Amino acid sequence: MTAETAEMSAAARALGGHRVLDPPGVLPQAARRLDATPAIGPDEVRLSVQRLNLDAASFRQLSESCGGDGDAVRAAVLGIVAERGKMQNPVTGSGGMLIGVVDAVGPRSPLGLAVGQRVATLVSLTLTPLAITDGLARWEGRSEQVPAEGTAVLFARSIAAVLPDDLPDAVSLAVLDVCGAPAATARVVRRAAAHSVVVLGAAGKSGCLSLAAARAAGATELTGLVRDRREAAALSAAGLADRVVAADATDPLAVAAAVGTPAEVTVVCVDAPGAEHGAVLATADGGTVVFFSMATSFAQAALGAEGMAADVTMLIGNGYTPGHAALALDLYRSIPGVRSLIDPRVHA
Amino acid sequence: MTAETAEMSAAARALGGHRVLDPPGVLPQAARRLDATPAIGPDEVRLSVQRLNLDAASFRQLSESCGGDGDAVRAAVLGIVAERGKMQNPVTGSGGMLIGVVDAVGPRSPLGLAVGQRVATLVSLTLTPLAITDGLARWEGRSEQVPAEGTAVLFARSIAAVLPDDLPDAVSLAVLDVCGAPAATARVVRRAAAHSVVVLGAAGKSGCLSLAAARAAGATELTGLVRDRREAAALSAAGLADRVVAADATDPLAVAAAVGTPAEVTVVCVDAPGAEHGAVLATADGGTVVFFSMATSFAQAALGAEGMAADVTMLIGNGYTPGHAALALDLYRSIPGVRSLIDPRVHA
Repeated sequence: MTAETAEMSAAARALGGHRVLDPPGVLPQAARRLDATPAIGPDEVRLSVQRLNLDAASFRQLSESCGGDGDAVRAAVLGIVAERGKMQNPVTGSGGMLIGVVDAVGPRSPLGLAVGQRVATLVSLTLTPLAITDGLARWEGRSEQVPAEGTAVLFARSIAAVLPDDLPDAVSLAVLDVCGAPAATARVVRRAAAHSVVVLGAAGKSGCLSLAAARAAGATELTGLVRDRREAAALSAAGLADRVVAADATDPLAVAAAVGTPAEVTVVCVDAPGAEHGAVLATADGGTVVFFSMATSFAQAALGAEGMAADVTMLIGNGYTPGHAALALDLYRSIPGVRSLIDPRVHA
Repeated sequence: MTAETAEMSAAARALGGHRVLDPPGVLPQAARRLDATPAIGPDEVRLSVQRLNLDAASFRQLSESCGGDGDAVRAAVLGIVAERGKMQNPVTGSGGMLIGVVDAVGPRSPLGLAVGQRVATLVSLTLTPLAITDGLARWEGRSEQVPAEGTAVLFARSIAAVLPDDLPDAVSLAVLDVCGAPAATARVVRRAAAHSVVVLGAAGKSGCLSLAAARAAGATELTGLVRDRREAAALSAAGLADRVVAADATDPLAVAAAVGTPAEVTVVCVDAPGAEHGAVLATADGGTVVFFSMATSFAQAALGAEGMAADVTMLIGNGYTPGHAALALDLYRSIPGVRSLIDPRVHA
């Protein structure tokens, strides 16, 4: 075995490559089937599963394809996990996250977890080895929240957040689900020493956290763009933005008119396709757009900026920034306006 | 008319909003139909068209749908332009670019063009008002290069590059087609003061120009990743990289093994889907990935980086950076290795 092969093996192993059964040589997310054996290697962590949080698009697809029959949905999820060794909906390709208790920690795990801690996985279920042992008997197949017993495995390069004692699980999950956005926003604002920031989709979870993070990072002119008067009233009451404007984020000229003077940083948290060109027009020359919406089209963004001769830096929002979970939870705890917008979205 | 409405109108007009006939209120790229009237406004420029350069995907679709019948392809292009006022393939959505001579310059045009200059448009045909007057009589419908007579209109916020006298048109077009990549690469390398750079797809047009631009911007450890031995030999002979490695860019673990120590900046010029995860693995923590391939998937990049807990900044390659055309043409002129890789790709 050459040094180069050994190096590759270490990288592959840290990402869970050794758990891939089919097809060989791919990473766990791309695998059809993982080895979900509960026995862990020296750099792995085993979780005792308490609850799965299915991706909304995945649950909707399963429910519709089963005609809303909860027993059939339950059987479908059990079938997927048994066949694939992970909960990855073969139609939507999406997964979700899970909550569990740390059950065993390999001696060489770098994650810093201890047996007994309650954690949420911040890497997707699409790459997490999962075995279910209770037949999902406590789940009626009618909600994305799935009480479950079984085991899950974290690799050396996975991420899990210890669930805080002072917040309900549902709140922590809602915040952790979008914790990449405020962390990346804070970093961009700080690096650019930006004063003016526009957030598109500012009344949602990631939007309001991004506004709060931008303020904490030093921005002084915050504009929140929302879709209608109801959202505008809620965001104004929350006090997170210096200016609240309402416009259809998918209408570029309406966005430009509503925003007025373009901002140094624009953050896109709109959960709908078509916000790319408005975001570019809302951004000053030399400025930065951060796209967090998973509905973003790479081609629309790239061709739009070119077609408008817009000298803007466009970032693909990375869900991982070191310290992202703690930052988002702290913003929720310390800023009443964030709580006022997130709490109504949490079905505790 | 309020001040805000006036401001919107100016922005909309600079982008050609006043040329949109259907549906009203969108930007020219999203329009079904533009007003291609040759009479120009005070901030517009009119070109006398000499040649259209159809997007490769668009030409292929037209040719296949016409069973390779050149007369039918010609009729299809004429039909599209007559109906839409622009050459945007309704199936692929793509356009291309054109060459023409500046024919009239409005007194308030900010583009700095003069009557008589030969230019290439660097904004897409999908947003350029176009009228054809010769029935494309000199085109046999068998190539993306379309000799044509007619008029095209540039807006205040369009981009056109004056074609240099010292290079064949085909070379200038080939270089200008990808000129966004070297300019953005140079900017990223300079801003990060990066030493190590990996280019995926390094033997292609945008790849070799990006290597040359990274070197000129101060990078000292350049790795070029190519697909096979033939490309490796060509890139090695060109002398643009300090190290040339061959691997399948769509196999993340193979890319990681070939690259070895991750780089501060990774530039993706691979013209195929699936290069996102390899690019992330090729990049050091705290580093930057620049995606230039239009085959990039936003979701694959975002979810991949998160799933691998990779703290990397990911940029959507913007085709426009000020000075991009001049930089790319200068790299072609001054660096023999760039010429040795681009010339064989030019069908002059």
